Amino acid sequence: MKSLNRQQIMTILAELDLIPAIESGFIQYSLGEVVVPPVAELLLDKGEVHIKYGYVKADDYYVIKVASGFYQNPQLGLSSSNGLMLLFNQHTGELVCSLLDEGYLTDVRTAVAGAVCAKYLAPKKITAIGIIGTGIQARLQAMHLKQVTNCRKIIVWGRKEGRVLEYQTYMQAYGFLVEIASNVSEVAAKANLIITTTPSTSPILNADDIRSGTHITAVGADTHEKQELDSDILSKADVVVADSLVQCQQRGEIFQALKRELITNIDIVELGNVISKANGRENDEQITIADLTGVAIQDIKIAEAVFLASKS
Amino acid sequence: MKSLNRQQIMTILAELDLIPAIESGFIQYSLGEVVVPPVAELLLDKGEVHIKYGYVKADDYYVIKVASGFYQNPQLGLSSSNGLMLLFNQHTGELVCSLLDEGYLTDVRTAVAGAVCAKYLAPKKITAIGIIGTGIQARLQAMHLKQVTNCRKIIVWGRKEGRVLEYQTYMQAYGFLVEIASNVSEVAAKANLIITTTPSTSPILNADDIRSGTHITAVGADTHEKQELDSDILSKADVVVADSLVQCQQRGEIFQALKRELITNIDIVELGNVISKANGRENDEQITIADLTGVAIQDIKIAEAVFLASKS
Repeated sequence: MKSLNRQQIMTILAELDLIPAIESGFIQYSLGEVVVPPVAELLLDKGEVHIKYGYVKADDYYVIKVASGFYQNPQLGLSSSNGLMLLFNQHTGELVCSLLDEGYLTDVRTAVAGAVCAKYLAPKKITAIGIIGTGIQARLQAMHLKQVTNCRKIIVWGRKEGRVLEYQTYMQAYGFLVEIASNVSEVAAKANLIITTTPSTSPILNADDIRSGTHITAVGADTHEKQELDSDILSKADVVVADSLVQCQQRGEIFQALKRELITNIDIVELGNVISKANGRENDEQITIADLTGVAIQDIKIAEAVFLASKS
Repeated sequence: MKSLNRQQIMTILAELDLIPAIESGFIQYSLGEVVVPPVAELLLDKGEVHIKYGYVKADDYYVIKVASGFYQNPQLGLSSSNGLMLLFNQHTGELVCSLLDEGYLTDVRTAVAGAVCAKYLAPKKITAIGIIGTGIQARLQAMHLKQVTNCRKIIVWGRKEGRVLEYQTYMQAYGFLVEIASNVSEVAAKANLIITTTPSTSPILNADDIRSGTHITAVGADTHEKQELDSDILSKADVVVADSLVQCQQRGEIFQALKRELITNIDIVELGNVISKANGRENDEQITIADLTGVAIQDIKIAEAVFLASKS
């Protein structure tokens, strides 16, 4: 049995192109080739724990992920999120690899899904990358976009000036030119690829601000309550993509727009189908939206990919 | 984070008295102080995986156990059962210890529960320990009884003569005098503490054979289908004990007797209540039955105990 710690995993990830693995995972998911039972949950006084698990039928492994959120941890100097992934042999049940990533692989697989969305949905010429928020996803999403676009211009907006300045410094060290927007409308005016990464529970991006030819990937909303996009954006959009149809019907931006009856189920296409048919965007005038709520197939695929890379 | 492998765990267990920990766990369980959500399950082509998890509210840890059964494994020279336990900090979500026991801790916690049942339910003077079956529980149950009785006489019955002879040799090396019974009735005639440990799906022990003053711990039946005891034994018994009332209503010997309306819920007492009131057996004439289906609190307690012992 192999065990990889966070540092070892980060070293492996630096050399690894995860886009093919995550793409094939979404395709298999949309084809019904993935078994993902309901999430198991443990609620504690100071936090919550989710256990996600599943496998691709034709693969050699199954994966169990433990992810926790303990919201008083920062007061103790600890990250609020934590976790690990366990990779088992699908034919014998043997534990093959412990990935003690402390939650980092979840952050990365989310960012890789964002890059996949941009690959199939963003307009050909990206004028600037708009980033809403300044946290870990605001950073990782932009970094993973490097694989699918040559654009290195970011226009960022965040609530706290200090955090925005930190973001600017951090991303410039990674080769981006980072402009700070004074409001969200300015991001929508200058960027035609926008990533929203906040835990907001009320819309931040307004429908009126969204220009034709814009793609938006909404990463932040993954519960019933969270929402970053004015739901009118989804009815205005030409293409609305869900990472998981069944999950987006119950949480996130698509859930909000369905609830308000601004879109219907036939307006939604699943990401795996977009990838397999490469039919996301038809022209540079369309408005496209991808709603990422996070699917266990991403965990399965990244755990497999890191383990296989650790052997070579 | 500490990681203990099977060999290290076995070394720690050799020095550890688990009865107090398991007893306090059953008491806390019966008092409603334990949180144990429904078991998560993953079904694969060649096996099945169960994820059991929970915590004692006042404790410092929560435990996630992964247990698998892959029934073609023996053809590959591997054990069919496998597993591990993960111990996390209940206040921060941090992984504290990985117990890579390959399923051994589950075997041990089951045997310790058997010893606890004998401690409170067996008659004062044990004439012989009756063992039905020859597998791992047939061995571990007898070994753990050493802590609660001075009786070292075993009378064993099993279906396969070769396995019975192996059992005899094995247990004699551990200081037992082992007699082989030619049939199950002979076990019931000679032993007044009987442990049934088989995966049988039809009754092995007959009600007519059970003498007054006998205690039976039924370990084998943990599903809807499995059954080792003629259900008339439960209606004949003076005391019927369930490790978990809610679980025994759905599987095991008590489930079978309830289904046939040979007993009712008021005839059943939960093990934690027996321990806390020390009121299992009133005299040496009573027939007592304990039905062990396996409860996650046992996993929580053994994982905690092994981890704490590893620090000292």
